[in-house]
Amino acid sequence: MRTCIATVSLSGSLTEKLAACAAAGFDGIEIFEPDLVASPLSPEQIAERARELGLSIDLYQPLREFEAVDEDEFTRNLRRARRKFEVMRRLGTDLLLVCSNVSPRTVDDDALAAAQLGLLADAAAEHGIRIAYEALAWGTAVNTYAHSWRIVEAADRPNLGLCLDSFHILARDGDPRGIEQIPGDKIFFLQLADAPRTTMDILQWSRHLRCFPGQGGFDVAGVTGAALKAGYHGPLSLEVFNDEFRQADSARTAVDGRRSLIRLQEQLGILDLPAAPAPSGIAYAQISAADPERVRRQLTALGFTTDGWSRQGDLVETWQQGDARILITTGSAGRDSHRDSHHDVARLTAIGLHTPDPAAAAKRAEHLLAPVLPRDHRPQEAVIAPDGSLLYLVPAPPEGASDGGPNAPTTVVIDHVALTQQWHGFDEAALFYSSVLGLTLRESVELADPRGLFRSRTVTNADESVRLALNLAPHPAHIDQHAQHVAFAVPSVIDAVRRLRAAGHDTLAIPANYYDDLDARFDLPAQTLVRLRELGILYDRDEHGEFLHCYTESVGRVFFELLQRVGGYRGYGAANAPVRMAAQHNHTITAGR
Amino acid sequence: MRTCIATVSLSGSLTEKLAACAAAGFDGIEIFEPDLVASPLSPEQIAERARELGLSIDLYQPLREFEAVDEDEFTRNLRRARRKFEVMRRLGTDLLLVCSNVSPRTVDDDALAAAQLGLLADAAAEHGIRIAYEALAWGTAVNTYAHSWRIVEAADRPNLGLCLDSFHILARDGDPRGIEQIPGDKIFFLQLADAPRTTMDILQWSRHLRCFPGQGGFDVAGVTGAALKAGYHGPLSLEVFNDEFRQADSARTAVDGRRSLIRLQEQLGILDLPAAPAPSGIAYAQISAADPERVRRQLTALGFTTDGWSRQGDLVETWQQGDARILITTGSAGRDSHRDSHHDVARLTAIGLHTPDPAAAAKRAEHLLAPVLPRDHRPQEAVIAPDGSLLYLVPAPPEGASDGGPNAPTTVVIDHVALTQQWHGFDEAALFYSSVLGLTLRESVELADPRGLFRSRTVTNADESVRLALNLAPHPAHIDQHAQHVAFAVPSVIDAVRRLRAAGHDTLAIPANYYDDLDARFDLPAQTLVRLRELGILYDRDEHGEFLHCYTESVGRVFFELLQRVGGYRGYGAANAPVRMAAQHNHTITAGR
Repeated sequence: MRTCIATVSLSGSLTEKLAACAAAGFDGIEIFEPDLVASPLSPEQIAERARELGLSIDLYQPLREFEAVDEDEFTRNLRRARRKFEVMRRLGTDLLLVCSNVSPRTVDDDALAAAQLGLLADAAAEHGIRIAYEALAWGTAVNTYAHSWRIVEAADRPNLGLCLDSFHILARDGDPRGIEQIPGDKIFFLQLADAPRTTMDILQWSRHLRCFPGQGGFDVAGVTGAALKAGYHGPLSLEVFNDEFRQADSARTAVDGRRSLIRLQEQLGILDLPAAPAPSGIAYAQISAADPERVRRQLTALGFTTDGWSRQGDLVETWQQGDARILITTGSAGRDSHRDSHHDVARLTAIGLHTPDPAAAAKRAEHLLAPVLPRDHRPQEAVIAPDGSLLYLVPAPPEGASDGGPNAPTTVVIDHVALTQQWHGFDEAALFYSSVLGLTLRESVELADPRGLFRSRTVTNADESVRLALNLAPHPAHIDQHAQHVAFAVPSVIDAVRRLRAAGHDTLAIPANYYDDLDARFDLPAQTLVRLRELGILYDRDEHGEFLHCYTESVGRVFFELLQRVGGYRGYGAANAPVRMAAQHNHTITAGR
Repeated sequence: MRTCIATVSLSGSLTEKLAACAAAGFDGIEIFEPDLVASPLSPEQIAERARELGLSIDLYQPLREFEAVDEDEFTRNLRRARRKFEVMRRLGTDLLLVCSNVSPRTVDDDALAAAQLGLLADAAAEHGIRIAYEALAWGTAVNTYAHSWRIVEAADRPNLGLCLDSFHILARDGDPRGIEQIPGDKIFFLQLADAPRTTMDILQWSRHLRCFPGQGGFDVAGVTGAALKAGYHGPLSLEVFNDEFRQADSARTAVDGRRSLIRLQEQLGILDLPAAPAPSGIAYAQISAADPERVRRQLTALGFTTDGWSRQGDLVETWQQGDARILITTGSAGRDSHRDSHHDVARLTAIGLHTPDPAAAAKRAEHLLAPVLPRDHRPQEAVIAPDGSLLYLVPAPPEGASDGGPNAPTTVVIDHVALTQQWHGFDEAALFYSSVLGLTLRESVELADPRGLFRSRTVTNADESVRLALNLAPHPAHIDQHAQHVAFAVPSVIDAVRRLRAAGHDTLAIPANYYDDLDARFDLPAQTLVRLRELGILYDRDEHGEFLHCYTESVGRVFFELLQRVGGYRGYGAANAPVRMAAQHNHTITAGR
């Protein structure tokens, strides 16, 4: 199907928006009126620019508070509409959106609304223009699609139809199945937006928190599917008011949006993408460091060994313990390396993911607009992740070979990797990992860092042998400062810490107050508590089991976590994260003195 | 009265928070438990640090989901409480906060709640500890102060009393007058927080959007006054969960918080501050520029003249037209000059405000913790504004002399000055201008800039002869880039633009589309429209009158607005701001090529 996006969804000037839409591969755009009004280009020039870029102009949205008003106001509104018909002629577009009236002056009279919309349609017909009427969720009299349809039906004009918007339907818990009863050719336009599930004023929710399909909690596919069943054959068009998108880079946002529509069409079975099984394990994590000596010393103390340097494209050094592998490179892999003013600092630049069919996965990634590196100089397929790091798609080990189980490993495995996302890049990352890699989004949590709350969300494969934690720093500058980490599941955290200490390495110091609180919260055996306190090990518990973990000191941006899941513990010790972050904050301050 | 603040209101580690609280002059603190748990200092060391800083520890808040539970859970909860009594002994504090149970397991049985709180109080009594019970607005069974008081009354223990929190009372539209009926000595603690009026989930509202008294829409004074009438004599304590405060500089936030309590006490008539009449006019705006030639040329073209350089502390050049004065200095006035990487760029660094009693105003500012410059080398009193610019308090002209009226001036006056505030500094600025200068806060609006939505709020004196627009850029980096401007009210914008053009100067180019839209929106006489279009003048209208305005091109960060209020127009042309900002954005892009 054709894909469109409303210009309000993106940042920048109208010309910047057009360029971003075209580059992302959209077929058309909806022009949000303030973008046109503020543009130095005439409507003819905008049409010309769109034509050059291969974009159609599918909708114009210039009328508000139009229908169900008194005679005088209607006369003024019709005059206004005629002026807008002229702009549309110059733009070369023929579909005009009218949202249901939100003014307190609205007359609650369906017959009046139908009559006035009918007159508007008649006036539009002289110019070959069609009118799409849309029920806003906060419309004064009309705020459900069923109601807007009754009015359109009553007005009964060939060039008057409906615009459906998934947000307005789903924010009011509307049942999309009724859409199937509407004649498809009377659904003139379909606007799509998702949103996080929350309880707040619908207008504010709609104006600030909409997001692309797959990034929120709405059943956008349900609305789209119902419209398709009804026989709708117009474009799928994103209309997303989002405070972050308005600030973010428009080129990235446009790609993010188009990815959401590609994935949506796949879910609805109307677009075939290369199928690719999700990753089955974390093959390795790669750390870049100009001077890797401190990383080497830490890995050695943790029990890792190396065979020394080898060349697989870049020059890399492989460190291994059990099934956990860390590659060290002094190269600067990763797209963001040139932007990183601290590029000498150790940081995570790549993850290797065991992938049952790397070639298919790379093809799928390409279809979903993920930047795939050319194969020429690379032994493996590689996709650039939203944070600029590389995801190597590594052939999975043969059936039966251990790929690291989620719980109670008998050897060392990578339990999860935590990556800091770009400011405003949280939703983009969530959609990327779910659609491109087929990972499952887990619940989003908020964690208190001394510098602010930040959001964290994990994505995993089905058996949780791949777990990635996506963290969003609270400040744009933090992406270059915020820690990244690799968590190793070990058979015994207690043994691992003892070994580390014997090798002369400290773990991150955990305050004594933490253990006093632990004692108050959990009735742990006295001896256990003493041991945890001695060894600086953190503890958590859920209904499935227990969790022991601790951290190394950071080297550059990177630190390691050692953890042990006892029983079926499913979390990540989120309750302890603020303690860890405060300890790292104190450490930074002390080190800075 | 004594003033306190909860550590959760500030960013940083516990030691950083303590230092900020002490520096701002608070008498005491509430320790938020996670801050203690994450601190490397023992409770004894925290107590010692607080003592050194002259801070008492007034409250500790370690218990959640305590009361109205089954026997087993109560036994566990009491064990937990005993551990916390021990921490409190080490901290040297004797007041423990228990919030009403929010667990779905809560038993809705007041007698059970009273019995269990009674037993907790008895256990606490052995340690000389008092218990303050607080109704959370989202408590499962208990969520109003009246209900919490019935339970405390039923439990009837001398060391069991109430904690009142203005947020929890006012977010549910509770009537504070009932507080007056509670015996004052049973109100153990009073927590104060304001919040913007909005419609959303109360828990989210409380956790993310609280602000200091005077920064939101709640009648915090009403709750405080009622508690005082009841005979409450404990401290006024701020407990503010705010996403921005958690990220902002803790020293600034602490000062902001204490200022709010000083002002609140003045409002309640329990603290006498030096009274000072609000400013009566804008004496001048001062622009700093390493090379002021372009500013001079613009002012000349606008009709300003100068007497040349003079020295009044700094070396300044005074430009005047009618009652509007612009000072130009090549010095670097303003606190932020060292931080400004573009400090050669022209920018607004000071405003002179006609002040009926400058000495009293400066004294008042000092009492409200505003940084007042020492008089030594300055001819005038000066206060540093939150954005780093200087506010000179200039003696008002003698009675009868024109200080610039709000509307339809017969000469040129400064209508308003627009200043960009620090990221996260919007609420701080609002409270500063209202409390320190006695200006009135007007409605906050959101404006669409191509780089994001930003908030704008005006503050004015009673007759609107002083108007300042406080703008908040959507990104921390924007403060150094975002435009500032001085708006001149002129007798005729049309004449002023013609004069400007005759002098060879352009105004900011306004798109033709804007005028097509103007034609659609307003039924303006054809000739008027032609003239506005020709001259690049923007138009707005409200129920009071009409507004004509236009902009010069920016020099550095500064531009000038020419405006004309016809009739009683009260706004600032907010509807046109997006058009202006898009034009400036396009201009920047073009200039950058």
